[in-house]
Amino acid sequence: MSEKILSISKRTRVTPFTRRVEAAGVKAYTVYNHMLLPTVFESVEADYWHLCEHVQVWDVAAERQVEINGPDAARLVQLMTPRDLSKQESLQGKYAPMCDAEGKILNDPIVIKLSDDRWWISLADSDIKLWAKGLAQGYVLDVKVFEPDVSPLAVQGPKAEELVARVFGDAVKSIRFFRGEMLAFEGVDMYVARSGWSKQGGFEIYLPQWDLGEALWDALFAAGEDLNVRAGCPNGLERIEAGLLSYGSDMTDEDNALECGLGVFLNLDADVESLSLPALRAMADKQTRVHAGMLFDEPVDFASVANNIGGFDVLDGDECVGEVRSQIWSPRYKKHLAMGIVQKTWHEGRATVEIAGQQGRIVALPFSAEDLQA
Amino acid sequence: MSEKILSISKRTRVTPFTRRVEAAGVKAYTVYNHMLLPTVFESVEADYWHLCEHVQVWDVAAERQVEINGPDAARLVQLMTPRDLSKQESLQGKYAPMCDAEGKILNDPIVIKLSDDRWWISLADSDIKLWAKGLAQGYVLDVKVFEPDVSPLAVQGPKAEELVARVFGDAVKSIRFFRGEMLAFEGVDMYVARSGWSKQGGFEIYLPQWDLGEALWDALFAAGEDLNVRAGCPNGLERIEAGLLSYGSDMTDEDNALECGLGVFLNLDADVESLSLPALRAMADKQTRVHAGMLFDEPVDFASVANNIGGFDVLDGDECVGEVRSQIWSPRYKKHLAMGIVQKTWHEGRATVEIAGQQGRIVALPFSAEDLQA
Repeated sequence: MSEKILSISKRTRVTPFTRRVEAAGVKAYTVYNHMLLPTVFESVEADYWHLCEHVQVWDVAAERQVEINGPDAARLVQLMTPRDLSKQESLQGKYAPMCDAEGKILNDPIVIKLSDDRWWISLADSDIKLWAKGLAQGYVLDVKVFEPDVSPLAVQGPKAEELVARVFGDAVKSIRFFRGEMLAFEGVDMYVARSGWSKQGGFEIYLPQWDLGEALWDALFAAGEDLNVRAGCPNGLERIEAGLLSYGSDMTDEDNALECGLGVFLNLDADVESLSLPALRAMADKQTRVHAGMLFDEPVDFASVANNIGGFDVLDGDECVGEVRSQIWSPRYKKHLAMGIVQKTWHEGRATVEIAGQQGRIVALPFSAEDLQA
Repeated sequence: MSEKILSISKRTRVTPFTRRVEAAGVKAYTVYNHMLLPTVFESVEADYWHLCEHVQVWDVAAERQVEINGPDAARLVQLMTPRDLSKQESLQGKYAPMCDAEGKILNDPIVIKLSDDRWWISLADSDIKLWAKGLAQGYVLDVKVFEPDVSPLAVQGPKAEELVARVFGDAVKSIRFFRGEMLAFEGVDMYVARSGWSKQGGFEIYLPQWDLGEALWDALFAAGEDLNVRAGCPNGLERIEAGLLSYGSDMTDEDNALECGLGVFLNLDADVESLSLPALRAMADKQTRVHAGMLFDEPVDFASVANNIGGFDVLDGDECVGEVRSQIWSPRYKKHLAMGIVQKTWHEGRATVEIAGQQGRIVALPFSAEDLQA
C-alpha cells in the first residue's frame, strides 16, 4: 500500500498535546482509542536512533484510562482479568490482559491501583469502558465507570530519568519499575510511573487536567534542551526489536491469551473471581497455535505474501501454516524481524522457515540479544 | 492542521474490498471500528458532484456488525436502546441510538432484525460488541455476541437502483426504505437493504463471506460501466448538507440522546425493558443544550476559533456558548454550513450568530431546502 492521508475530524480526537506535536513536525498518526497517536516525526529509523541515545517526549494520551470507582471496584477489575490482582499495592501498575469468558483477549492494559476503591485501566486500543459498564450494570455493582480527564505523556530514552527528575524532583529516581508516585507539577498532583512502551526505559506522567498539557510539555522541553530532548512516539522498530506486542496486530479478540504467549501474566491457579479463568484453565494444555519469532539475514519481500486480512502468509509448500503480523528491517542488527502466530504442530522442533524465498530462523519471543546478534 | 499520513498496520484492519479501493486510487482514509474507511478518491468536491449525478460503490465494511444470536437476543437488543423495537419486522432495519443508564449515547447504529432470535447491530464507531458482551454476561442471557463475517458494500447515487437491479434482479426495485431482502450473488444469499449514509438514495449489500468481496465489487463495476459507476465513499460535504450526524463528532458519549436531537427516534412512553428509558424520561424537559444548524453566506475561518478539543468555539462576546463540531463550505449552495451544540438559553429566540467575524443564521437541523437556498 502506498501512503495515504488520514482524514481528521472531531471523532479522531485530538489530545492536550496535539498542538505541540503539530508544531514539532509530526508526519504521521495512527488512530488509537478514537484519538490521534503520533507514529513518525523525522522517520521511523531516525526517530529510533534518537530514542536509543537521548530522551523523547511522547504524546500517548491515546492510552486512555477507564476509571473504576466505588466499593465494588476491585471486584469488577478482577472479574475482567485472569491475572491475580489481590496483592497489588496502591500506586502499583500491572500488565493485566483482559479476557472474555472464552479466554479471548479484549485488551492488554496496565491496571493501576490508586486505592482499594479506585483503579485505572490504562488501555490498548479497544473500548473496555463499554465492557466494564455492561458488566457493572448486569452484576449490579456499586461502581462508577468512566473515562477520566487523564492523558499520559511518556518520557522515554536513556536520559529520561534525568529529565523527569529536573521537572518533578529527585523523588522520581527511587521509583521502581511499574511503580509510581503522586508528584506535583504547578501545584497539581499527578501520577508519575516508571513505565512506557519502549525498552529504553523512562516514565509516564498521567496528566490529570487537560488544560495543563501544554505547560507540562513546555516544562519538559525547557528543562531538557541540553539533553537533546525531542518529540517522539512509540517506535515501530524499537518495539519489534523489544518484542513488545501490539493489541489488534500481534493479538486480537480472535486469539486467546495462552496462544499469544501471555501465560506468564496469568494466574491459572489463583483463587479469585475472574470471568476468563475457568475457560483458560480448561484449555491450558490444548493450544493449537503458538506465537513465534523469525529472523532473516536479508530483507524479505513481505508484500509478496500479503494476505487479504492485513497480515502475511507463512507457507509450507502450498499450505498456510501461520501468519506474520508485525515485521520490520532492523538497521542495527541487519536482520529482518518478524512476529506471528503459527500452527503448533508445524512449529514443534522446527528451526527454520522460508518466506518469499528467504531462509530464516525460528526463535523465541521476545527476541534475545543472542538471537539478534547471531 | 496540515495533511498527515495514516500509519497502517494489521490493527487498522483492511476490508474484503481494500485491494479494489487501492486500485481505484483512494487518497485518504479514516479509521472506523478499527478498520480502514475510505474518505477521498478524487477530491471531496469532485466525489460529491459525481455522487449526486451518477452511482458510486462504497467500501463501508467498517460499519461492522455485532450479531446477537439466541433465545434472549430480542431482550438484549431492546435493553440497549430507548427506541421501541417490539413491532420491528424481520429483514427491517431501524435507526436505534444506543444509550447507557444515564441516557448518554454509546453508538447510533442501524438495528437489523433477521429473525426473532438473530439480530445485527450495524455500527457507528464504537465497540458495542463489548457492551453487549458485558450485559449478556451480567444478566446471564442466553445469547451469543460476536462480530460475524459480514461487510457492507454500499451502492449510492441516483443510478444506484438500476445498478443493483442489474446484479441482483428486479426484486430490489420493490424494496422499501430501511427494508431488505435476502438475494443471491454467486449462489450465496446476502441481505440487500435500501439504505446508506447519503441522501442520494441507494442500497447496502451485506457481504456474508469475505472471499466473495472482490467478485461482488467487480460484478458491480462490470454491470455499471455505462452508468459511469465509480468508487466512492461517505462524503463529508453531502452528509453535512443532508444533516446526517456522525457519532464521535456531532454527538459523543458525553452527550445524551435528547440534546442531540434524537428525540424523534426514542419512544419515551414505550412499555419495554430499556436501560436508558428511565433516565431519559426523567430528563425529558430538563435539557440545557440543543443541536443547532448555522448558515453563512461567506466562507468562515473556523481555524481561527478552533478549541483544543477538536471543535470550534461559538462565542457570545467573551463567553463560550457552544461548539461547532462539523462544518464545510458548500459550492452548490454557496454557503458555509455548520452543525453544533449550543446552550439552550442562548439559543432560544435567537436568529443570528457571529463566528470569526462572519454573520450567520441559526437554523433547524437537518438543513431545509428553503434555508439552504435562501
